[in-house]
Amino acid sequence: MANTLTTAPSGLILASASPRRSELLQRMGLSFTICPSGVDEDDSGSKGPEILVMNNAQLKAMDVAQQHPDAMVLGADTTVVLGNTIFSKPQDLVEAASMLTALSGRWHRVLTAVALFWPEGEFYESFICCSSVQFKPLNSQLIAAYFQRVNPLDKAGAYGIQAGRDLIIESVKGSIENVMGLPVQVLREQFASNGFDFDA
Amino acid sequence: MANTLTTAPSGLILASASPRRSELLQRMGLSFTICPSGVDEDDSGSKGPEILVMNNAQLKAMDVAQQHPDAMVLGADTTVVLGNTIFSKPQDLVEAASMLTALSGRWHRVLTAVALFWPEGEFYESFICCSSVQFKPLNSQLIAAYFQRVNPLDKAGAYGIQAGRDLIIESVKGSIENVMGLPVQVLREQFASNGFDFDA
Repeated sequence: MANTLTTAPSGLILASASPRRSELLQRMGLSFTICPSGVDEDDSGSKGPEILVMNNAQLKAMDVAQQHPDAMVLGADTTVVLGNTIFSKPQDLVEAASMLTALSGRWHRVLTAVALFWPEGEFYESFICCSSVQFKPLNSQLIAAYFQRVNPLDKAGAYGIQAGRDLIIESVKGSIENVMGLPVQVLREQFASNGFDFDA
Repeated sequence: MANTLTTAPSGLILASASPRRSELLQRMGLSFTICPSGVDEDDSGSKGPEILVMNNAQLKAMDVAQQHPDAMVLGADTTVVLGNTIFSKPQDLVEAASMLTALSGRWHRVLTAVALFWPEGEFYESFICCSSVQFKPLNSQLIAAYFQRVNPLDKAGAYGIQAGRDLIIESVKGSIENVMGLPVQVLREQFASNGFDFDA
């Protein structure tokens, strides 16, 4: 979708304060800067989880892209979906525990939306990747032990897959990196198919 | 972004009542059905034109995709942008004339967002294509003559490029089909790169 206005973005900007996303981009061997967006995330979800995550990823990307129109800005949002229920970040530990109790012993979906905006190249694209996660049967002792190891308050669904995984996760279908917050493989393909090179 | 849940969409659905989009898909040689979405378009534009068109395309696609999760649903939205001003569909002929007066003799951008949603394949993608259009200098006689030939009320920016073009358009940069409402070439590439075949 790039046109010929400018030949290449000046660089890659991650519009997210998430240390997990930053770590994943680093693991991809990319050179990037971090510029967290200041937008308030929408967590109403009244239009469904796909619209919710896409909207949030796009709002974050646009917020930063307006300040850096010469760069490729990456916005992302991740949410946990059990049946028709969207689990965003919990407000407190009580809500966090009730989320894990709801997820206990069941499969749920993890959606990560990525928005790639490069205004000067008139490049605006977004997509969603889905993974599925099965939890072990959890009880309150296990949940308390998990919260000793992992802070659930900054994570959609009150869990992360990168620490304490053995305590709560039974199995994963699809990209584990997507559950962490960025679908690394698809992102790599997107950059390659559009001829973008952000290698460090 | 497709995964292995199902191998191919059952068909292509155009989530739009626009006869121009339908004509463009037909010209592409695609087999599709039309199922207009019932969602109210957002035309506030407070987050900028790119967010506006992407949101609208996604809301239309999701509205129809929820009823047809086995199919690939195409939602689209087109808007006209002059500087920082978004021109949606005019409310009446007075507003239509004032839009054309504002566009007279100047370049403006036309953004079309496309959302491709196939829920059973967990495929959710959207992108924007931009074209630029230069208007001839217009006066009220020319505008009145144009409105004799073209109904401006169902068109963003109060004009269409497919009829009466000689009266108002000086030149176009980028895809003319995108100005009509669908970036045909990019859409073809999207389908091909993902292995989707909707040929009639």
